Amino acid sequence: MPQTQSDAPKKPIDVLVHARWIAAVDPANTVHENASLAIDGNTIVGIYPQQEARQRFSAEKNFTLDTHLLCPGLVNAHGHAAMTLFRGFADDLPLMTWLTEHIWPAETAHVDAGFVEVGASLAAAEMLRSGTTCFSDMYFYPGVTAAVAHRHGLRTQLAFPVLELETAWAKSLQEYIDKGLQVLDDYKHSAYVDVCFGPHAPYTVSRETLLKVLTLAEEIDAGVHMHVHESEQEIQAFVHEHGQRPLAMLHEIGLASPRLCCAHMCHVDDTDLEILSTTGTHVAHCPRANLKLASGFSPIQKLLQAGVNVALGTDGAASNNRLDMLNELTTSALLAKGVAGEAHALNAVQALRQATINGARALGKDADIGSLEAGKQADCFAIDLDQPEYWPLYDPIAQLVYCANSQHISHVWSAGELRLEGGRLLNFNLTELRNQVNQWRNVLRQ
Amino acid sequence: MPQTQSDAPKKPIDVLVHARWIAAVDPANTVHENASLAIDGNTIVGIYPQQEARQRFSAEKNFTLDTHLLCPGLVNAHGHAAMTLFRGFADDLPLMTWLTEHIWPAETAHVDAGFVEVGASLAAAEMLRSGTTCFSDMYFYPGVTAAVAHRHGLRTQLAFPVLELETAWAKSLQEYIDKGLQVLDDYKHSAYVDVCFGPHAPYTVSRETLLKVLTLAEEIDAGVHMHVHESEQEIQAFVHEHGQRPLAMLHEIGLASPRLCCAHMCHVDDTDLEILSTTGTHVAHCPRANLKLASGFSPIQKLLQAGVNVALGTDGAASNNRLDMLNELTTSALLAKGVAGEAHALNAVQALRQATINGARALGKDADIGSLEAGKQADCFAIDLDQPEYWPLYDPIAQLVYCANSQHISHVWSAGELRLEGGRLLNFNLTELRNQVNQWRNVLRQ
Repeated sequence: MPQTQSDAPKKPIDVLVHARWIAAVDPANTVHENASLAIDGNTIVGIYPQQEARQRFSAEKNFTLDTHLLCPGLVNAHGHAAMTLFRGFADDLPLMTWLTEHIWPAETAHVDAGFVEVGASLAAAEMLRSGTTCFSDMYFYPGVTAAVAHRHGLRTQLAFPVLELETAWAKSLQEYIDKGLQVLDDYKHSAYVDVCFGPHAPYTVSRETLLKVLTLAEEIDAGVHMHVHESEQEIQAFVHEHGQRPLAMLHEIGLASPRLCCAHMCHVDDTDLEILSTTGTHVAHCPRANLKLASGFSPIQKLLQAGVNVALGTDGAASNNRLDMLNELTTSALLAKGVAGEAHALNAVQALRQATINGARALGKDADIGSLEAGKQADCFAIDLDQPEYWPLYDPIAQLVYCANSQHISHVWSAGELRLEGGRLLNFNLTELRNQVNQWRNVLRQ
Repeated sequence: MPQTQSDAPKKPIDVLVHARWIAAVDPANTVHENASLAIDGNTIVGIYPQQEARQRFSAEKNFTLDTHLLCPGLVNAHGHAAMTLFRGFADDLPLMTWLTEHIWPAETAHVDAGFVEVGASLAAAEMLRSGTTCFSDMYFYPGVTAAVAHRHGLRTQLAFPVLELETAWAKSLQEYIDKGLQVLDDYKHSAYVDVCFGPHAPYTVSRETLLKVLTLAEEIDAGVHMHVHESEQEIQAFVHEHGQRPLAMLHEIGLASPRLCCAHMCHVDDTDLEILSTTGTHVAHCPRANLKLASGFSPIQKLLQAGVNVALGTDGAASNNRLDMLNELTTSALLAKGVAGEAHALNAVQALRQATINGARALGKDADIGSLEAGKQADCFAIDLDQPEYWPLYDPIAQLVYCANSQHISHVWSAGELRLEGGRLLNFNLTELRNQVNQWRNVLRQ
């Protein structure tokens, strides 16, 4: 392609973002300095030296971010968005007390479409404010969460619940599946909403149901998202009952594949590692939730060395208590070193990949998002690294991973549309949201 | 004492802070709601219901913080302030490569009084912005750090280096001690600066020197601050050479006592636990640095159950990479649960105590700071909890520990004087500081 000459007509596009640094998260992990991201419509045109970008393009809007790092939008690969309403509801309790005496009874008593609407909206606000533009979600009333995500321009993969017990949302296995597939149908034209199967876990959903899920997932080419090997206790109980580890069963029935994303995966023996790596099964690592619930220490460096795709997730706010992927990024990088016993385990670049392109792969969206490359969707965030807490700056990626707080995120775009500017959410009525959240707080606190 | 009547003359005082919540961190861990902290001069008068406070006192300045939590200033119980200039200088390397090929050579080549002046100033900015009002410090040129701390109203316990090798700061053991005690003398009238002995570690400082340190420390009633049991490797090497673990040697020579604060203490066997608990030796736990350098997992819940006083420290920015005690608080609470295998280990209140009163005890300052009680110094910070990330709010302490980011800290007082207001440092020229930091960055990066 001949070089654009300065007298050539400029190509009109929508947006040019001129940034001090751009982390492309491409295969070479390029960090561009003083570069411009060109966006047209919902799509990335390319990354160019700033001068060249200004010569090539005439942008409707220019953003000059002289002290900022621009990154792909973060991908939250495991969570339960609406559970923000349980943030801090019952902390510091033994796991089973927490679940059986607090969370489950409150869910049974209160979770309905209105709860999910408010909880998912609060999650959307928190995720956008912390640079997340895509999230996996597993919760009741996924159609409500779909509407919230679509409204705020958040991409989502809704893992609709598949259970065999009656809840407020569905009465039978068939009803769970029918209602889930209805969401898929309702949003088939949405660029933001995608649907997959969310059978809760091998210890709560039968082998027969999982086989049915697999058949349906293959028929419609959808993913399967599941809690797997979260606690040692659940594994031991499963082995006692079935004579094999849960992941081995999933492998035996053919579910272990690039279609499957295993959330948590705290406990990985050699056979598990072999299954994950040979089948291309994804892992959604949730370091903060795993610590908070004392679930165990996922051997991230081992998974990495075995070539397993490890994404990052926050889990729900009841067990984190934040949906902030920058926190997760930092914790993942620190914890992986501690667990591996190696100060050079999971470096900053690898941690950033976990939170972006690896998440996109785990959700089957890596053709569209997860990196800033020409032709991909323009999902990105900018963070202002000119803060005393980030001085001196030797390496912007290290500063992002080991220093950054999401309060310094200034801009977020999804599908080329600006969602956060100067740290303020656009098109979000936070005052109304606070009132709604407080109403739910008062109901739950009764 | 008779109740103050509304027509009684009001007592004139300097400051009333009216807050939504005040965490006193007193022995009962009282959290006052809609209360006022009364400050006169550098001292806390008391905590009162807001209406009563307005009736009793006529304050020169009133601060109305309707959505804020007021807490004792945080105490950073282990660090190397000036090392902020090495923040992100050499991340993600194996421990010995990092030390011997990057940090030590750079220190040898560049650390002088000017370096410490700029590095400690940057640390002071970061610590005040994140609610820290008191810090322990072990680094060369402690007199320079003393001047910085005194200037910005940060309390400090300077553990001046005691080494047997020549550095830019001192040539001989005697010179280290003489120069350190000179700082003590220079600042004997400062309310902010205190000095103790900082022999680096049992594996770098001989038993004879430690005995000399102990004698001197007892003579002048000063503390001793030391790296102890940071890595398994250093313990094994010590056992190989001396036939006993480092802590056992410290105990044998009489150094294990409430005078001693052991930084890190990642590795604690049953005998170590016994020594720590029976002698009243303090531990300064550095969870983020311990993870980042893969030093090991300190058994915090065990220490707690044995009655050991565990404080929290950030360590230096070269190995953290932040000096943010709120980050440390969160990581400590999460990690203690993971390590103990119990979701109810180290609850939010205990984590806040680690970062406040326990730190004050470890530094021998608990008569003056660490809690908001009448007669103590008025060192405190306010954080605005009315953020989407903290909604809904069931428990302000849980929200502080599991959700908070230091960017929402709005006010900091030390000794009754306002140091940060509306999130902005007072009397701090950040523009000049940035220039100085960047000059050092360019020198170090050569």
